[in-house]
Amino acid sequence: MDIKNYMEGVGQAARAAAADVAKASTAAKNKALLSMAAAVRARQAELLAANAADLAQARQDGLDAAMLDRLTLSAKGIESMAQGLEQVAALPDPVGEITDLKRRPSGIQVGKMRVPIGVVGIIYEARPNVTADAAALCLKSGNAAILRGGKEALRSNQAIAACVREGLKVAGLPETSVQVIETTDREAVSHLVAMPKYVDVIVPRGGKGLIERVSRDARVPVIKHLDGNCHVYVDGDADAAKALKIIENAKTQRLGTCNTAESLLVARSVAMAQLPAIAAMLIAKRIEIRGCAETQALVPQAKAATEEDYYTEYLAAIISVKIVAGVDEAIAHINKYSSQHTDAIVTENYTNAMRFLREVDSASVMVNASTRFADGFEFGLGAEIGISTDKFHARGPVGLEGLTSQKWIVLGDGEVRA
Amino acid sequence: MDIKNYMEGVGQAARAAAADVAKASTAAKNKALLSMAAAVRARQAELLAANAADLAQARQDGLDAAMLDRLTLSAKGIESMAQGLEQVAALPDPVGEITDLKRRPSGIQVGKMRVPIGVVGIIYEARPNVTADAAALCLKSGNAAILRGGKEALRSNQAIAACVREGLKVAGLPETSVQVIETTDREAVSHLVAMPKYVDVIVPRGGKGLIERVSRDARVPVIKHLDGNCHVYVDGDADAAKALKIIENAKTQRLGTCNTAESLLVARSVAMAQLPAIAAMLIAKRIEIRGCAETQALVPQAKAATEEDYYTEYLAAIISVKIVAGVDEAIAHINKYSSQHTDAIVTENYTNAMRFLREVDSASVMVNASTRFADGFEFGLGAEIGISTDKFHARGPVGLEGLTSQKWIVLGDGEVRA
Repeated sequence: MDIKNYMEGVGQAARAAAADVAKASTAAKNKALLSMAAAVRARQAELLAANAADLAQARQDGLDAAMLDRLTLSAKGIESMAQGLEQVAALPDPVGEITDLKRRPSGIQVGKMRVPIGVVGIIYEARPNVTADAAALCLKSGNAAILRGGKEALRSNQAIAACVREGLKVAGLPETSVQVIETTDREAVSHLVAMPKYVDVIVPRGGKGLIERVSRDARVPVIKHLDGNCHVYVDGDADAAKALKIIENAKTQRLGTCNTAESLLVARSVAMAQLPAIAAMLIAKRIEIRGCAETQALVPQAKAATEEDYYTEYLAAIISVKIVAGVDEAIAHINKYSSQHTDAIVTENYTNAMRFLREVDSASVMVNASTRFADGFEFGLGAEIGISTDKFHARGPVGLEGLTSQKWIVLGDGEVRA
Repeated sequence: MDIKNYMEGVGQAARAAAADVAKASTAAKNKALLSMAAAVRARQAELLAANAADLAQARQDGLDAAMLDRLTLSAKGIESMAQGLEQVAALPDPVGEITDLKRRPSGIQVGKMRVPIGVVGIIYEARPNVTADAAALCLKSGNAAILRGGKEALRSNQAIAACVREGLKVAGLPETSVQVIETTDREAVSHLVAMPKYVDVIVPRGGKGLIERVSRDARVPVIKHLDGNCHVYVDGDADAAKALKIIENAKTQRLGTCNTAESLLVARSVAMAQLPAIAAMLIAKRIEIRGCAETQALVPQAKAATEEDYYTEYLAAIISVKIVAGVDEAIAHINKYSSQHTDAIVTENYTNAMRFLREVDSASVMVNASTRFADGFEFGLGAEIGISTDKFHARGPVGLEGLTSQKWIVLGDGEVRA
């Protein structure tokens, strides 16, 4: 197989399909999504068989338990994939939405219309459920999609792709509106990210290595999601009960998510009163504490934190702790060490809350809430394709809006410029 | 002078200043802008002398009349520069604006806050007025700025930079909030566009060559403005009087602007009735017509258009003309040949107007209005730093909003994720 020719063909087909998807009616897109859900349910046995074959191969290749877990499709997983497709069908259609229409002194009305981007390329690891998810979000936002999943999930992804194509066909949309790459050759990715003629944006979903590689090689814009080194700052005016509850949730509810807190800052004025109870809670949950000297003085079990610790997204049962003078030092520390993903302050002080909100330069900034809320569903986007730590185009959780663009529209009655 | 060291120093200073500018009050920013305007007026003699020296050198170097014209600062030009600074002071401050705040089922309130991007690098040709303009827009949007103007305007730009620094000083803002590069070495540009540590976005203002060079070498996002190959489509249901007036304005009001129409499409059903009068108007205005065979049959003076003509932004007294079957062919033609800047339909037909608005994939799409309206002032942005033909981040005229980002904010009362 000539990979370059194959990818050019996929790109051309996507570009051609994009024009049809962009102008498809909401009803047609929803019909396709609901038909995909029906196909996923009807073909449960096929999906399970394809997945079993992928799993057998993966075990033979010695994949670790975590990877096998992500690769596995259960009957329950297939049902929630179908429900996910139905949920996207139920979301409002972002395409064609007109906002901010205002009449100008010249007589023209000027506003904005939300429109698809065109062709979206999504690169992800061996998680078959992402195939259905990504297909649904791209279709609903009026884009054609080229999906490239991890090679270990090839058979599962092709089986899901058949359901997606069936849904598109039932709705009268081009089957090439969503294409799942059929080769596991890595060269396919190199072409996918470097075809500006056919692909308008790349969304890498996966580990840091994947995202850095894609960002380096891409010749089109990338909506990327890097580290989540998230902070909770307990201010001098924090409510102790709220602080304890928020830190417990932010750090210990799930250790491996990007919105999990990795670092705790405590105002010196409340450290003696609040830090021992917080530390006791963390230690009871088997979280290792790595703190500054002042932290170690208050928490004997704490190890010494290095400069590197404050930069680290552990994704593990470890938290770094630092005692700071107050909100100024907290903001400066976060703007230096944070990955600009999500950071929270716990305070009853209005001015400190407002300053933290405005001055912390992160995608999501919170007052008296757990960092774990940084999520497309929790924010009301209905679904998310990723969480962007960039400042351009899409920032924070990326839903249907992040897969669209806004153009200007002018409604006139023969006006000309003076 | 070690250009790399110099640019690193400029970058570091800009990054440090950006934190102060980002949190500066609206009052401080406006005071700086008004003080800059006062300084520009007070130092008129200095500015004229610096500009005279630039002009003398430029004449010696054999610059052409158009470049000399753009380089020239008159007393009137200095007054309008001062007024421009005052106008930016009068615009609403975009920084800190909170929108879309909604309460979620979890109890948290989620919304968006508009915030500065950080450090903006602007690269432009020998037009001294851009120095004041760009400084004002970056400051008002809470960003630090690094400005690099054309080498022929060095003395003029340094004289304006002195006024800008004076205004910043009066308002208590860091004088390094706006830095004008002091070297004319081209190497400075290569460093400026490739310092992601210090510069967050590059805005090139100038010819196609400059923009392509910057886009190719940039290692940070670029807000770019390429060709304006704008179309007017006269639909089968066009009002003939509106069509004539709009084409006259769109093509002939100014020949050299990016929102000038370069191509005219006419529906076959009205070509015989409307094209001769339109052509007569254009010919009377000394516009050369290059048309398809059907156009030539109706307009004997028309030359034959080549395929290349339909792709061309003439910026001159030439227009390409094509007769098309109707709105479908018009949309397809525009989506193929247009530079996605600005395209307009003239029609009384509701469905054709809606289809054109939705399906033409350009930054500004218009119904019954002249393409010349695609402009920051005309659209109500107050001012513009450029017109983007990208689909990401900023599309169409870029004003203060385009120089900002939106982050998510969460207002809670101790909520945690279930």
